[in-house]
Amino acid sequence: MSLSVGEWLVSYGTQAFEIIGTLAFALSGLIEAARKKLDLVGMAIVTALAAFGGGTLRDILLDRRPFFWVENEGWIWVVLAMCALALVFMRTRHIELTEKTMQWPDALGLGIFAAGGTQIAIGAGVSPIIAVVMGVITPVFGGVLRDVVVNEIPRAFNDHQPYAVIAFAGGWLVVLLNALSWTPFWSVAVGALVITVLRLLAVILGWRLPTWRV
Amino acid sequence: MSLSVGEWLVSYGTQAFEIIGTLAFALSGLIEAARKKLDLVGMAIVTALAAFGGGTLRDILLDRRPFFWVENEGWIWVVLAMCALALVFMRTRHIELTEKTMQWPDALGLGIFAAGGTQIAIGAGVSPIIAVVMGVITPVFGGVLRDVVVNEIPRAFNDHQPYAVIAFAGGWLVVLLNALSWTPFWSVAVGALVITVLRLLAVILGWRLPTWRV
Amino acid sequence: MSLSVGEWLVSYGTQAFEIIGTLAFALSGLIEAARKKLDLVGMAIVTALAAFGGGTLRDILLDRRPFFWVENEGWIWVVLAMCALALVFMRTRHIELTEKTMQWPDALGLGIFAAGGTQIAIGAGVSPIIAVVMGVITPVFGGVLRDVVVNEIPRAFNDHQPYAVIAFAGGWLVVLLNALSWTPFWSVAVGALVITVLRLLAVILGWRLPTWRV
Repeated sequence: MSLSVGEWLVSYGTQAFEIIGTLAFALSGLIEAARKKLDLVGMAIVTALAAFGGGTLRDILLDRRPFFWVENEGWIWVVLAMCALALVFMRTRHIELTEKTMQWPDALGLGIFAAGGTQIAIGAGVSPIIAVVMGVITPVFGGVLRDVVVNEIPRAFNDHQPYAVIAFAGGWLVVLLNALSWTPFWSVAVGALVITVLRLLAVILGWRLPTWRV
Repeated sequence: MSLSVGEWLVSYGTQAFEIIGTLAFALSGLIEAARKKLDLVGMAIVTALAAFGGGTLRDILLDRRPFFWVENEGWIWVVLAMCALALVFMRTRHIELTEKTMQWPDALGLGIFAAGGTQIAIGAGVSPIIAVVMGVITPVFGGVLRDVVVNEIPRAFNDHQPYAVIAFAGGWLVVLLNALSWTPFWSVAVGALVITVLRLLAVILGWRLPTWRV
Repeated sequence: MSLSVGEWLVSYGTQAFEIIGTLAFALSGLIEAARKKLDLVGMAIVTALAAFGGGTLRDILLDRRPFFWVENEGWIWVVLAMCALALVFMRTRHIELTEKTMQWPDALGLGIFAAGGTQIAIGAGVSPIIAVVMGVITPVFGGVLRDVVVNEIPRAFNDHQPYAVIAFAGGWLVVLLNALSWTPFWSVAVGALVITVLRLLAVILGWRLPTWRV
C-alpha cells in the first residue's frame, strides 16, 4: 500500500513503539526471573513468555500462523542477548529502578498490542465481543503466563489496577472505528493512542478498580 | 433433523441441563476467585477458564473451530454479568452455602460435557481411547486451569473423589452405544444420564478412590 | 524406505531408545505425583503431561496433527498401567532410588526428543533458530508442564544444570548436518547421540550453568 506522509510518519512511529512495547514486556519477564533467581534457561523462557505469550495464545485461538516470533525470529536473539546481559549486569537496585520506569513503555505496549490484537481478530472475521476479548488476551496473557510458570498468582488478577479493563474499553473503540469505515491503520493508531493515554492517566492518578464489599 | 416428541423433549432438556452445567462450572471459577480476593479482571478470567477451558483445550487438541464461547458469544456477557453481581452481592457466608449446593448442578455439567465431549471426538474420527480421553478433558480441565492459574494444586488431582474416573467410565459407555449403532443424540443422552447419576451416588455415598499404601 | 544393515540396526536402536526415553519422562511425572500424594487421576494426568506435553506443545505451535499419543494410543494404556502399579507398589524408598537411576534413561530421552523435535520442525519448513527452539521445547516443556500443574517452579528454570542448553547446542548440530545434506535419519541419530553423551558428561562431571553475580 502507498502511504501519505502523515501515515508514513505514524507507521514508523508505530513500529518504533511496537519495539519499545515488546522490549517492555520482555523486560517484565526478565525482572520476574531475576527476582526468582532463575537460571539462564528459566530467564530465557519466562522472558519469551512475557514478550510473546499473549500474541501466541491469541493466534492459537484464532488458528493463525505463523506466530509473531516465528516471522520475526530476530526477537529470539534479542531475548537471549537480554538474558546474557542481565546475568552479568543486573543488580537488585537496578530491578527496583527498572520496575518503576517500565510502567511507561509498558503503557505503550498495552495500547499497541490491545488495539492491534483487536484489529487482527476483526480481520479474522470474528464478532465484535470476541475481537475485543482477543484484544485483551494479546497484551494481558503474556504477563499471566509469566506469573503462572513461576508460581505466582498473576498480577493482572489481583492488583486492582485498570489495565485489562482499559484494553477492553479501547478494544470497543477499535470496533467502533472499524464500523465507521475507518481504515485498519487509523483504527489501530487511534485505539492504541487512547489506550496508552488512559493507562498513563491510571498510573499517574492512581485509579483503582471497584473492590469487594467486606 | 426432525425429532420425535420424545427426542424433542430430551433435546430441550439437554439444552436446559447444558446451561445449568455451564453455570455451575462458571460459578466454581467465581467462587475460587472470591476466595483468592481477585479483582474484577481476575474474576472474569478465572470464571471463563472454569466454564470454557476444558472444551477449548479439547477443541485445540482436535483442531476444531469455532470454540463454544466464540459461537455462543452471549456466554461472555453472562460471565461478565456474574462477576459484576458477585462483586456487589457475594459474601463469605454465600460462598460456603454455594459450594455445597453446587455439587448438584456440577454433576449435570460432568455428565453432559463428558458424554458430549466423547461424542464430538468420535465425530472427529479419533479412536475409542482418544475419544474417551477427550471426554474426560472436556469437563475436567476447566477446573484444572482454574486452579493452576490461582496457584493451587488442581482439586481434581488430589481430592480422591471419583469425578474424572466416572467421566472415563461413562465415555466408554458412549463409545459402546455408538458401536451398537445408536444415534449420537441418544448415545449422549444416556451417557450423560449415567455419568450424572453415578456422580450423584458418589457424592451421597461418599465413594473414594483407592489411595496410597502408606 | 529401504534401509542398509547399518541403518536398520540404528533404526531399531532408536526405537528402543525412544521407548526408554518416553518411559523415563513418564516416570518423572509419576514420581512428582507420588511426592505430592496425588490420587489416581492426578497421577495419570501429570504422568501423561510429563511424557507427551512437550511434543504436544511443539505440534500445536507447528500446527501438526495427529499428536504422538493420538497416533500411538497404546501409550495411554502404558501410562494408566504405570499409575495403577505405582499405587500398589511404590514406596518412598523406591522414589529416591528411582530418581537417581532415572538420570540415565532421561539423558536418552533428551537426546532423542531434542534431535527429533528439531528435525520435525525443519521438515515443517521453519527457519533454523525456530527449529532449534522447537527442539528445546520438545524434551523440556513436558517437565515444565509437569511442575507447573503441581504448583512448583519448573526444575528446568532454576536447577542451574545444563539440560535445555545442551538441547539447544545439539539442535544446531542437527541443523548443520541437514545443511550438509545428511539424511534426516543420520542427522537425528548423530544429534541424539551427541546430546545424550554431553548430558551424561554434565551429570557425571557436575557441570553448572553460569549464575547470578551477587
